[in-house]
Amino acid sequence: MSRGPFNGVLVPVLTPFKSDFEPDAERFVSLCKWALEQGAAGLAIFGTTSEANSMSFEQRENLLEKVLESGVPAEKLMPGTGGCAVKDVVRMTSKAVAAGCGGTLMLPPFYYKTINDDGIFRFVSEVIQAVGDDRLNLYLYHIPPQAVVGYSVELLSKLYKAYPSVVVGVKDSSGDWDNTYRFIREIPEIDVFPGSEGFLLQGMRAGARGCITASGNVNVAGIHHLYENWQSDEADALQARISEIRSVLQAYPMIPALKVVTGDYLNDPEWRRVLPPLNPLSEKVSNKLLADLGQIGFRMGEH
Amino acid sequence: MSRGPFNGVLVPVLTPFKSDFEPDAERFVSLCKWALEQGAAGLAIFGTTSEANSMSFEQRENLLEKVLESGVPAEKLMPGTGGCAVKDVVRMTSKAVAAGCGGTLMLPPFYYKTINDDGIFRFVSEVIQAVGDDRLNLYLYHIPPQAVVGYSVELLSKLYKAYPSVVVGVKDSSGDWDNTYRFIREIPEIDVFPGSEGFLLQGMRAGARGCITASGNVNVAGIHHLYENWQSDEADALQARISEIRSVLQAYPMIPALKVVTGDYLNDPEWRRVLPPLNPLSEKVSNKLLADLGQIGFRMGEH
Repeated sequence: MSRGPFNGVLVPVLTPFKSDFEPDAERFVSLCKWALEQGAAGLAIFGTTSEANSMSFEQRENLLEKVLESGVPAEKLMPGTGGCAVKDVVRMTSKAVAAGCGGTLMLPPFYYKTINDDGIFRFVSEVIQAVGDDRLNLYLYHIPPQAVVGYSVELLSKLYKAYPSVVVGVKDSSGDWDNTYRFIREIPEIDVFPGSEGFLLQGMRAGARGCITASGNVNVAGIHHLYENWQSDEADALQARISEIRSVLQAYPMIPALKVVTGDYLNDPEWRRVLPPLNPLSEKVSNKLLADLGQIGFRMGEH
Repeated sequence: MSRGPFNGVLVPVLTPFKSDFEPDAERFVSLCKWALEQGAAGLAIFGTTSEANSMSFEQRENLLEKVLESGVPAEKLMPGTGGCAVKDVVRMTSKAVAAGCGGTLMLPPFYYKTINDDGIFRFVSEVIQAVGDDRLNLYLYHIPPQAVVGYSVELLSKLYKAYPSVVVGVKDSSGDWDNTYRFIREIPEIDVFPGSEGFLLQGMRAGARGCITASGNVNVAGIHHLYENWQSDEADALQARISEIRSVLQAYPMIPALKVVTGDYLNDPEWRRVLPPLNPLSEKVSNKLLADLGQIGFRMGEH
């Protein structure tokens, strides 16, 4: 049984931006609702794929309010609340908890690179104590390719033991199956979500709770279909198919690529905009990506 | 002749914190004024040493206001304004320029690690255009040990050519003299400040404008003395002495170590507090540090 409220495929929802680089709440809410209709178990809004760190905390908080006002159920939300400053993280986490969000997903503080487990423990402890709310379901976000620093198995275990009612899970975006497997085996009390559907089937077989994956933005239907059928005879074939789709996407810069596919599906080129320091794909590269996906028979919204 | 208003030793001033982790404006202003009295050419407040990224932008903006109200001359300030979100950086930079700060020091956006020069160029361009104020003297902050991404020589050259009246300098905290030398030689129009006094003398001989260095917090007198006498016969001996002091400090985690030395000098243990994810030094390690500095005859405030 899972400790936290989430089981299945969570989507780190892409954030659309207007020409003035403000988040576009209307388009964002539409994609959130669509992902839930397509089978998403939850929405990990404000993740890496969402360009959350390219937004101010104020922009994130305002957008969260608009999502809640739109009728998306708060319990389906696992907003990213991480940052480098304790004060920002405490405020954002408190807002999410007060709003009834199912959980929050927290990066380690990612500016200093010479910090150690004790320093990250101290940071997370400070956040948990300052938020001071039993309703907090905290998922820790391990993503060394971007944050460089991260949650080691030892640190995560220590955090779970110190705050067993709060620390309920981890998203592992290390891309390293051995590490994911260690989280599952060595801290069986917490819910482990690999950060890629490439590990969904082996994750489920080992005891993971699902996955939280960028490509869920365009292929939640297919990934959810495997999640629902991971114990069936067709599971390996379903895994092969979603991995094939992922491998096409991964040949391109992932975030702008997902925005191109989404914009194509919705016939809405506004979706292609990304915040600096990311770059949009050129028209030529965008067309190549769409052709590559067509080649393998992929259509967004189908499985 | 320098392009920007700063020549000499700039101090990235340590930020003192209260027990609730709020910045302590009174103690901060005292240290700012003391550093100027000791010979600092400017104050690079809100740098890495200042734990700026561990503060929210709101905390930084409020502290900047208090420093300005205290009578510290705005033209002596080069506040750090960098962050991962364009919106934060534009707002903070605009406030600094409106207040008359001599310059601003800007990190690249440091969350995503797979970005390229074009993406950073786009980010910096957006900031310059959104601030839209000719009074901006922008110094770029190259610190790959923490930010991982950085300003390559080619990127800096391109930025200078695109915005020659705004991009006036660079702080190079790469710790790589070859890189610093390339900045000086290949972009002679901009002011180069090595990020360590270990490179002060060779920097001055090559054409640098001074240095911006963490240990300036405790040894600005000694470093300034070399800056004033870099063409004298005693220059090499002065360099050896400040490097000796730096090497003792560097044997400890630099930021908490500088806070221990400052707290000892001011007989004020409140100075020892650091924000998570940094850890304070233990009493035992603090005493060892102070003994090590005593061993080489170092006294803060003297040269």
